[in-house]
Amino acid sequence: MVNPNELRRKALAATKEKVKAAYTGKDSLIVQTVNAIDDLEKISNSLAMRAREWYSLYFPELDRAVPDHFTYMTLVTILRTRDKFKADAIKKLTEIDPKKIESLTINSMGADLSEKDLKPILDYCSKTKEALEEKAGLESYLETLMNEAAKNLYTVAGAKLGGKLIAHTGSLRRLALMPSSTIQIIGAEKALFKHIKTGKKGPKHGLIFQSPYISSEKKEVRGKIARAVAAKISMAAKEDFFKGKFIGDQLVKDLEKRIAEIKAN
Amino acid sequence: MVNPNELRRKALAATKEKVKAAYTGKDSLIVQTVNAIDDLEKISNSLAMRAREWYSLYFPELDRAVPDHFTYMTLVTILRTRDKFKADAIKKLTEIDPKKIESLTINSMGADLSEKDLKPILDYCSKTKEALEEKAGLESYLETLMNEAAKNLYTVAGAKLGGKLIAHTGSLRRLALMPSSTIQIIGAEKALFKHIKTGKKGPKHGLIFQSPYISSEKKEVRGKIARAVAAKISMAAKEDFFKGKFIGDQLVKDLEKRIAEIKAN
Repeated sequence: MVNPNELRRKALAATKEKVKAAYTGKDSLIVQTVNAIDDLEKISNSLAMRAREWYSLYFPELDRAVPDHFTYMTLVTILRTRDKFKADAIKKLTEIDPKKIESLTINSMGADLSEKDLKPILDYCSKTKEALEEKAGLESYLETLMNEAAKNLYTVAGAKLGGKLIAHTGSLRRLALMPSSTIQIIGAEKALFKHIKTGKKGPKHGLIFQSPYISSEKKEVRGKIARAVAAKISMAAKEDFFKGKFIGDQLVKDLEKRIAEIKAN
Repeated sequence: MVNPNELRRKALAATKEKVKAAYTGKDSLIVQTVNAIDDLEKISNSLAMRAREWYSLYFPELDRAVPDHFTYMTLVTILRTRDKFKADAIKKLTEIDPKKIESLTINSMGADLSEKDLKPILDYCSKTKEALEEKAGLESYLETLMNEAAKNLYTVAGAKLGGKLIAHTGSLRRLALMPSSTIQIIGAEKALFKHIKTGKKGPKHGLIFQSPYISSEKKEVRGKIARAVAAKISMAAKEDFFKGKFIGDQLVKDLEKRIAEIKAN
């Protein structure tokens, strides 16, 4: 007779192995990376707003002059105090008119904060800069991941959109097995259910709207183009999942031809 | 006749000086610091959740074993890979049973990630740790600020609650000029308006519920204690704003006496 304990031990070990194997695919890494980038997008925005508001106690005029978060944080963390905002130093850090920024320091309405009170503000600005860098780093890591795990999808949809589609469906497998009409409206579930419930017009595109093929076009043709893009994405994902060959370039060529046809009519 | 341009210049300069003076008070620093701590609270939580989920692809068993975020991030960023989770090394970093944590590495269900795929995860964990440290740093800076700008309020309510009251009202001046019955329900505006509109029971405490004098007591006496705490906070804020003397210790003594009376009845 088989020892039940031995049987249990073996079954457990086999299950663990299976779970491990399921995790070992690149899919889960892609999902986590996409979600982390999403989080960091919100986080760095929230950090930047607070950092700007806080440093504005000291140098309020800078806020409107430098709209880009990364440039703002770079200027602040390197120059630190108003008296260091000289055209020569500014010129090395940004393309914005350095003379104009320097002129803002004259008669600034900001409070004259002590070194001790400036320190936590500058620390916060530096953390904000790091969060923006972290996000950029993860975006380039996502490119690598997508290029390794789903090269066709990567070529047709790009790392960001391709990654989001995998994250939204949960795995490359599920994406590959989806009909292209579903892929077309992934991320527009709310509009879809409204359509089903009330008979209002259905959504023409979900997440894939982020594809420049769609978002850069006129409203009238977007629905048709979305259908074409979804079809190619579906083919790319199937090819990737079933370890087919690289057909990304051909898919892009076909897609661009099809879009030209749609626009011609 | 006065040159109108000269007049305009002078008026502008005078206004700028006034704005500058208004910002130079410690109030605005307190408000920003309190809000930054609030932001970092949310941010570090969101980072920690993502970091845990992500590292769990590699070492899922660790998540439940180490509930504290800071300890988790410390362990992960220092030990990095499962084979380094040895009792001796763990013992130096946490009080949690090191043998138990070491045992989790045997037969871990986590995927065997490459060095390249572990790197972004460990980076993310290290950013999470830094956010937690940043928050702790700002909390101790807030203590300094409150001790300088509102020593009485600091003594009666603590840095966190005192700072939140200033941030919520906008300035120490506004807090000082408020009746203590208003201070009692700052932060419970929603419940207050519901009370006015529907005649439901009014709120007994808002933000000041965070005072350990109130939150640690039984529900029946909290309303009365909240009134006493609000009264002392109001006196403390008035004394601080009008640059009176230090009466914090006396206020605390009186408050504790009053609370003992309330509880005795």
